[in-house]
Amino acid sequence: MHIMIIGAAGMIGRGLADRLAQAGEIGGEPITKFTLVDVVPPAAPDTAGAEVECITADLSEAEAAPRLIKGRPDTIFHLAAIVSSDAEANFEKGYRINLDGTRHLFEAIRLEGEISAYRPRVVFTSSLAVFGQPLPDIIPDDFVLAPLSSYGTQKAICELLLADYSRRGFLDGVALRLPTICVRPGKPNKAASGFYSSIIREPLAGQEAVLPVARDLRHWFASPRSAVGALIHAGSIDLASLGARRSLNLPGVSATVGDQIEALRRAAGDAAVDLIRQEEDPAVLEIVSSWPRAFTAERASGLGFTAESSMDEIIRVHIEDERGEAAE
Amino acid sequence: MHIMIIGAAGMIGRGLADRLAQAGEIGGEPITKFTLVDVVPPAAPDTAGAEVECITADLSEAEAAPRLIKGRPDTIFHLAAIVSSDAEANFEKGYRINLDGTRHLFEAIRLEGEISAYRPRVVFTSSLAVFGQPLPDIIPDDFVLAPLSSYGTQKAICELLLADYSRRGFLDGVALRLPTICVRPGKPNKAASGFYSSIIREPLAGQEAVLPVARDLRHWFASPRSAVGALIHAGSIDLASLGARRSLNLPGVSATVGDQIEALRRAAGDAAVDLIRQEEDPAVLEIVSSWPRAFTAERASGLGFTAESSMDEIIRVHIEDERGEAAE
Repeated sequence: MHIMIIGAAGMIGRGLADRLAQAGEIGGEPITKFTLVDVVPPAAPDTAGAEVECITADLSEAEAAPRLIKGRPDTIFHLAAIVSSDAEANFEKGYRINLDGTRHLFEAIRLEGEISAYRPRVVFTSSLAVFGQPLPDIIPDDFVLAPLSSYGTQKAICELLLADYSRRGFLDGVALRLPTICVRPGKPNKAASGFYSSIIREPLAGQEAVLPVARDLRHWFASPRSAVGALIHAGSIDLASLGARRSLNLPGVSATVGDQIEALRRAAGDAAVDLIRQEEDPAVLEIVSSWPRAFTAERASGLGFTAESSMDEIIRVHIEDERGEAAE
Repeated sequence: MHIMIIGAAGMIGRGLADRLAQAGEIGGEPITKFTLVDVVPPAAPDTAGAEVECITADLSEAEAAPRLIKGRPDTIFHLAAIVSSDAEANFEKGYRINLDGTRHLFEAIRLEGEISAYRPRVVFTSSLAVFGQPLPDIIPDDFVLAPLSSYGTQKAICELLLADYSRRGFLDGVALRLPTICVRPGKPNKAASGFYSSIIREPLAGQEAVLPVARDLRHWFASPRSAVGALIHAGSIDLASLGARRSLNLPGVSATVGDQIEALRRAAGDAAVDLIRQEEDPAVLEIVSSWPRAFTAERASGLGFTAESSMDEIIRVHIEDERGEAAE
């Protein structure tokens, strides 16, 4: 199998490349080649024998996609996008990269298939941002797409394109609406969602974290390990049962900030919790309080997608994967 | 008010131009100019004083939209599209006209607004084809967009763009998902939905009609008069209460083919009904049996959109508007 990861330099892209390189196979088929693509040079993972090609390319440039697709990858993970705040601040850039870039990719695949039969698996990372208020407490699989951001609009449009290109037989696509990743490794960032990770990550490292919202705020989470696992699962399974609806709400953990804090207390004691300083920020609250709180995720669960079952498990995964403490 | 109708040569476009020309006003404001646009030369309606400009233009050509928008119409009715069967048979043409054409229009409006303040009302005709099976018996306003055709995909994408451009303040848009028009005036056509009109229209004219499906098939209808009325209403009312969700399922009549036939019998007697010849066509049945059967249409009703209340009324409207018999 020839695997292509577009957006390979990002947090999830790197984790995906590493995990696949380690496994050496996907869906029981040996991986013979990795093509890793990003706008900045992606790092090559350690592979046991598989060829690795690292390419710097920008899908929003119309000539990039046909060049990438000429190599006829069997499975394409398309993770490349600019983030929500960037797409909101820069209208044209958001549509150019998040919409036109993806459309160039799908078109390159379709046109390659006109030369001779070609129908790759395409796993596309979508987002909970395709949903917007008013929202039910638990969002069903057939809930309306009504984004409240340009980023969410671009993701929703790409989902619709993916479904139509799949229905027409040009590619075999699936869009995964990933839960908010928790605990995100690395340093605190400026994303509105950043605190969901930093109130766990920083106290576990003995550092202070700021909590800008009240403890009853509820949201939907999965670990980086689960997110990478979902992508690989989506690249491995038979998608025929999806029919024309190619977008999946993924399983996750519905937890309040209070649930997060109590899980942190069970993992690391009162001293860790005492490092969380509450400092309400109405601007952050306004953004995150409109986000989904829970999903039924029935279709994805039925297809074997899984996530952690509790915030305790999410914290345990973080400690194992990022702090390496399970081995100590 | 300067009114622009794009797709002015079509059945609904002509009816809209005529009705607005007759009224001389929209939402209480006098109409000073009509700009009528289509890929074939649109006919000028009889207006009492208002300027009329007829333009032949194709929105899928990137330079067309900026030229049209330079005239800064206050209200734009965008009805132009290629139909479902054409978009399914001609993939690239469908995306070029139904998606790129609409995007060019929205972009031209946005860029005109960068020169100086400009935020026109945009009324876009969407379609029930944004929905696909499995469907509930009565579709709620917040049901998922899951089209099963390239046409439906293109309409759904344009709805999402319209909502985002409205949210960003570039235009003040609303998308109307029109019910199937019944009774469509004119000659029988090859659309899969054609029989819904011809089993009324032809017998009323003393001609035979073919019914290709069983009598228990249910669907969602409104008259051409209602459709034009909905467009004008959408061009007149305050849309602020819609918030970010700018697409409306319109009110209509949910009726079975049997209901249609019994209404025809009440309007024109057994002799008319005897002109309907049942001749099942599995290809037609397969297409139309997947279509929506009914909608709650709560949001649109709340905003004052209306339709006929029965198939009898739909037939009466057809007799008045197309056969001129109320005046006889």
